[in-house]
Amino acid sequence: MSRKSKGINAERDLIHKFWGTGKWSAVRIAGSGSMKYPSADILATNKLRTLAIECKTCVEESKYIPKEDTEQLKTFAGIFGAEPWIAVKFKGYEWFFVSLEDLVEKDKSFIIDIDTAKSRGLLFEEITSK
Amino acid sequence: MSRKSKGINAERDLIHKFWGTGKWSAVRIAGSGSMKYPSADILATNKLRTLAIECKTCVEESKYIPKEDTEQLKTFAGIFGAEPWIAVKFKGYEWFFVSLEDLVEKDKSFIIDIDTAKSRGLLFEEITSK
Repeated sequence: MSRKSKGINAERDLIHKFWGTGKWSAVRIAGSGSMKYPSADILATNKLRTLAIECKTCVEESKYIPKEDTEQLKTFAGIFGAEPWIAVKFKGYEWFFVSLEDLVEKDKSFIIDIDTAKSRGLLFEEITSK
Repeated sequence: MSRKSKGINAERDLIHKFWGTGKWSAVRIAGSGSMKYPSADILATNKLRTLAIECKTCVEESKYIPKEDTEQLKTFAGIFGAEPWIAVKFKGYEWFFVSLEDLVEKDKSFIIDIDTAKSRGLLFEEITSK
């Protein structure tokens, strides 16, 4: 399976989880990587809150996130009245939802590692019950 | 070019038009046909109004729209606080934005023809300046 397909499958998995709550709805946004406009991977809402989510899957213990990605996500979230979140899935772990403030800055990227995700991130059950 | 590709190109065309206004932002929603959840093809917003748009392209003079599609669109729009619209592009014409109330009912489908689209539909410039 290609890296792109794996990414899309991971996003679909999250979308099923949102609908599965019975309270949240979610859609996958197409071509967020290929069009030049601000975007996100997923838009989810429970009518009271809307989340703009950038999804990252990772087989290593840490993941670099280009600052361009976080800027795009922030802009997009602002436009659609949504909260910007990074959803990161390290192999063998659950999804962690990490806020942009909790990413560690490194030159042109931010970095997120398993320890930070575990200590500061929210689990799916936590972010959907906040 | 496959029918699916043509449809996606038409949707991308609309998305460029929205961003081109400088006031509206739009995203294409992935897999609205393949996932079982309520969806739309495009979500567009100017921060004051949000439009949930189902896109239809047509080489004939009229287009059938299954009631299931309009129901899905209505549900989706309700969830995301958006107005439901059908955007229809007949070959050789501009996009017309038609409200669900202006579709003509026929058994299990609604039907939209060029004359109705021209007389009751809004042009892109009209819907984005309302």
